[in-house]
Amino acid sequence: MTIDYRSLANSSLRNLTPYQPGKPIEELERELGITSSIKLASNENPLGPSPLVIKAAQEVLHQSHIYPDGSCYEIKQALAQFFSVQANQITVGNGSENILELLIKSYLLKDDTTIISEFAFLTISILIQSYGVQAKLVPAKHWGHDIINMIKSIDDRTRLIFLVNPNNPTGTYTRDHDFHLFMEAVPPHIIVVVDEAYCEYISAPDYPDTLKYLQHYPNLVITRTFSKIYGLAALRVGYSISSPEIADILNRARLPFNVNSIASKAACAALQDQQHVLKSIANNQQGMLQLQEAISAFDLNYISSIGNFISIDVNDAATIYQKLLRQGVIVRPLNAYNMPRHIRVTIGTEEQNHRFLTALHTVL
Amino acid sequence: MTIDYRSLANSSLRNLTPYQPGKPIEELERELGITSSIKLASNENPLGPSPLVIKAAQEVLHQSHIYPDGSCYEIKQALAQFFSVQANQITVGNGSENILELLIKSYLLKDDTTIISEFAFLTISILIQSYGVQAKLVPAKHWGHDIINMIKSIDDRTRLIFLVNPNNPTGTYTRDHDFHLFMEAVPPHIIVVVDEAYCEYISAPDYPDTLKYLQHYPNLVITRTFSKIYGLAALRVGYSISSPEIADILNRARLPFNVNSIASKAACAALQDQQHVLKSIANNQQGMLQLQEAISAFDLNYISSIGNFISIDVNDAATIYQKLLRQGVIVRPLNAYNMPRHIRVTIGTEEQNHRFLTALHTVL
Repeated sequence: MTIDYRSLANSSLRNLTPYQPGKPIEELERELGITSSIKLASNENPLGPSPLVIKAAQEVLHQSHIYPDGSCYEIKQALAQFFSVQANQITVGNGSENILELLIKSYLLKDDTTIISEFAFLTISILIQSYGVQAKLVPAKHWGHDIINMIKSIDDRTRLIFLVNPNNPTGTYTRDHDFHLFMEAVPPHIIVVVDEAYCEYISAPDYPDTLKYLQHYPNLVITRTFSKIYGLAALRVGYSISSPEIADILNRARLPFNVNSIASKAACAALQDQQHVLKSIANNQQGMLQLQEAISAFDLNYISSIGNFISIDVNDAATIYQKLLRQGVIVRPLNAYNMPRHIRVTIGTEEQNHRFLTALHTVL
Repeated sequence: MTIDYRSLANSSLRNLTPYQPGKPIEELERELGITSSIKLASNENPLGPSPLVIKAAQEVLHQSHIYPDGSCYEIKQALAQFFSVQANQITVGNGSENILELLIKSYLLKDDTTIISEFAFLTISILIQSYGVQAKLVPAKHWGHDIINMIKSIDDRTRLIFLVNPNNPTGTYTRDHDFHLFMEAVPPHIIVVVDEAYCEYISAPDYPDTLKYLQHYPNLVITRTFSKIYGLAALRVGYSISSPEIADILNRARLPFNVNSIASKAACAALQDQQHVLKSIANNQQGMLQLQEAISAFDLNYISSIGNFISIDVNDAATIYQKLLRQGVIVRPLNAYNMPRHIRVTIGTEEQNHRFLTALHTVL
């Protein structure tokens, strides 16, 4: 008897299309036999991690044989102090995706549903599917979350709603007024998760300060990450801030050692270096202007973004992506988001942006 | 209206007692205001990681801002070459616990059941419970897996069976003859997971070489880790070797960046340093003899173990554990395993073993 061991797996997984990450530079160079290519495909901080991070990590590498502190004491204390919240409101994960997964695992059963916006960060939808749960996809409005229609989509089976703010890959955001309206409208037994992976980049005055909402809305969970502005994507540290009750549940749902110790130490050090954060913000603002001006000069449209990336309408993203690869420039085509006209480009250093713009000019 | 956000969570999580890791040294010293304590509570390699590991990790720390290669290309190639299997048979996880979790998530639904032995590595049972699935706990035989009764426990709803070999915390093992008999008896639609976290320590000639079984039994999954003999517990890298079909499903179930890049590089380097592995085995064999002799001289019984740890009958583990803590020695009381008479002690360096034995002598 021959058995297909795929067919024995849960149907939700059998039919799932895994997330396609940005192509690693090594892979591109292996495939095309080229060197010195650049990657602007994963919204990484082009300035890299703070030097304090590297120092802190180096100091603990000789302790690699010791299990992490399963309670994440040090990093929780550091985050609690930084945000003026209690340590028991913090949950730390193997990237914020780990926290998103724990929320799905903890609060959704097969007959429950969740609500998410069209064009929202795809990993969330894939995670939801991997747990065999249904998501209502609410059509976007001007590429952003349609808050009113998301509220209208709530029904008896809704238990969890995801907002991505600002949204990746569109760079759009939900304003404070709309966010407040949303939190007021959602019944308190429904948990609202706001994924704020890019929040540190934001200077828009009407971007909601969700930490302030936490005390009034115990159904609110804020997820954030060290992968973006803090430059620790390789190390996988994300966290959530929530009510202690929700944090207690997530703590039960997680693996006992889900966060590695080197990463914890590095994250604590990263938090200390707010100068590096400011430098990263400044680089991003300058780079965003540089790209916007050039893209307009190319007569291309882009979606206005407050993140560290910009999505550009190049008509045929798949083709342009391939052509850019041959120029040694990796960007992200957005076909998986049903945005086949758009590529998403991370704001790099001035030189990287220039390199991308030259390559784009060549292939257009 | 006041809502308890714990009560909204899935009932399997609400009622779950999280895994209690070995107490971190920092925590003990914080609590008791002492210094220079030792931890023999988590089966860590007392020799630490290979120097090659530290060098390899240091070299990539400046790349901390770059996302890991989601496909784990390099580490999969290294493991495939090391074990003479195909790279598509390898799944890499955030510790082998991550792989165990992916198996549960992928192959069990609420109405399915799984089988596991009494006294088997507790994290597995906790993970099973966290997914709301039922496990049949088969009573142990001489502290080890009762293979015959595990076979007899199979019924129509069984889809996954876990063996832990050697078992933690008892150090007992399933012999090749019994393992073969087991694989023959289990119907091919049931997946057998053998957790071999300690396999590199084993010299017993009748310990099964499960890699050889893989080609005949495509329902076999072997999980292993870099946390034990390779000394990378802090970094969280585990892996499984299975049929490509099962690996394909696990790949869909995992987070896209579940393994951090520094850890991948470190694991590749660790695999290169087999001298360090041999040194670790030698230290373990000597230390095991040192402990066995002294324990017998104390007139205590222990469970014969082939791992890097030994479980000792001290009559009242909870009390002895507390008393040892005050001596600055952390061991593991096994109350959570329903073994209230036993403490589990990791084989340390000669000096650490001596320190433990002196402390034990004092508190007895």
